[in-house]
Amino acid sequence: MALALRHQDDEALLLIPDTIAQLAERLADASGAVLRRYYRTNVAVDAKSDDSPVTLADREAEALLRELIRAIRPADVIIGEEYGTDGEDPTWTWVLDPIDGTRAFITGRPLFGTLIGVLYEGRPVIGVIDLPITGDRWVGVADRPTLFNGRPCRTRACADLGQAYFATTSPDLFPSADVPLFEQLRDATRQTIYGGDCCNYGYLASGFLDVVAESGLKLHDFAALAPVIEGAGGAIVDWSGRPLTAESDGRVLAVGDARLLKPILG
Amino acid sequence: MALALRHQDDEALLLIPDTIAQLAERLADASGAVLRRYYRTNVAVDAKSDDSPVTLADREAEALLRELIRAIRPADVIIGEEYGTDGEDPTWTWVLDPIDGTRAFITGRPLFGTLIGVLYEGRPVIGVIDLPITGDRWVGVADRPTLFNGRPCRTRACADLGQAYFATTSPDLFPSADVPLFEQLRDATRQTIYGGDCCNYGYLASGFLDVVAESGLKLHDFAALAPVIEGAGGAIVDWSGRPLTAESDGRVLAVGDARLLKPILG
Repeated sequence: MALALRHQDDEALLLIPDTIAQLAERLADASGAVLRRYYRTNVAVDAKSDDSPVTLADREAEALLRELIRAIRPADVIIGEEYGTDGEDPTWTWVLDPIDGTRAFITGRPLFGTLIGVLYEGRPVIGVIDLPITGDRWVGVADRPTLFNGRPCRTRACADLGQAYFATTSPDLFPSADVPLFEQLRDATRQTIYGGDCCNYGYLASGFLDVVAESGLKLHDFAALAPVIEGAGGAIVDWSGRPLTAESDGRVLAVGDARLLKPILG
Repeated sequence: MALALRHQDDEALLLIPDTIAQLAERLADASGAVLRRYYRTNVAVDAKSDDSPVTLADREAEALLRELIRAIRPADVIIGEEYGTDGEDPTWTWVLDPIDGTRAFITGRPLFGTLIGVLYEGRPVIGVIDLPITGDRWVGVADRPTLFNGRPCRTRACADLGQAYFATTSPDLFPSADVPLFEQLRDATRQTIYGGDCCNYGYLASGFLDVVAESGLKLHDFAALAPVIEGAGGAIVDWSGRPLTAESDGRVLAVGDARLLKPILG
């Protein structure tokens, strides 16, 4: 599936600088250190315009990550959940979500993560999903096997939707137009598991889940996911079946076994 | 709130044998060792008659706990999720759920727990909620402060339902008669968080959540909860506002601040 990313004939993808891949993991380390400091401290919570919560921990972690990137990659574009977009050269673009799963973070639940995504000319080529409390980390780099805690991981085979385990963070996060696909999955799959945010994509990459579907995601929520899922043998697309790019509409469907795409999307 | 348990005038409650409280924790240790061995091993899953999943890990852990109890308390009644009820003397009754949150367990998610409840003449007097992967443990003993990882914990003040954080495992687990209370809570609270199973009651005891509501629970799902919640300053009742007993109908409402009971139950 990683080949699907290469919609231009671009050999540079095979030569992702090690400094960039290493920096992505260093950013996850740094974010985790901040989050562990604030976790379960009853840090104050603000509501953003979309009513999603944000904390001092989100802001402090993202500010730190921006500093660390700037010290090494002064011109790259940086897009973060809390502080928006800056930088001059969009060839390499860093997409940061210091806390994906802020509701979990503020309710003492360890199921949240830092997402570090790197786009090369708009295509996701590096993704890190890091869970700083449980110590789980998935690292995906285009055309390489995804690593889970340092070892290659694989999605599992599951061609039958009726046997599939489906996870989604919350049924309340689907706008009404998207409810039918959610209900189809809830009713057709073997089990539906709620909660989990970005963690679900990691569990799918490791072969513990078969389907994850969400809508309303922002670029910072999904930029890191494709390299992780695809490098583990799965597929991740929008709800029209197209690969995810910076322009995707935030409807995300991940499957461990690409044979599930047809029964889900038709 | 622990006083509410003492609906008979029974001083014996104040004299829970240390051997019983210690055994409850030893059972949680033993269960955790089994569960850690099977976690993320893609252990085979069977469906029970109610379509909830069960694994070899559930069965092996419960069999071990029964052995450990029998070695020390040969006559006590034991009620377990997998192997039913046995024992001659119901004065002290052990209620075991080796994996509460089997869906989480089989999908690689660390949010499941072992529940050990002890009833004295039908009333919950000891509860252990143990999360063997994250290392979190809550221990409640009637009339004593609840301990979270060895230190006293407290629920938080929250008298305004509009400011409350509400958690429930799954909206799909409410039978239709119970959906209105769920929807009331979902719509009236500040945030609704899904997933979590028994972990949510622990997080409430530690002051990270304000409301947890579920229905369809069995005795093994809720026997351990009251001592934990009440010893932390919260309240846990059925949906008619009555204390939980072995005869409760499985509709459970836990609040960190008892002032929330009135706006929820009317």
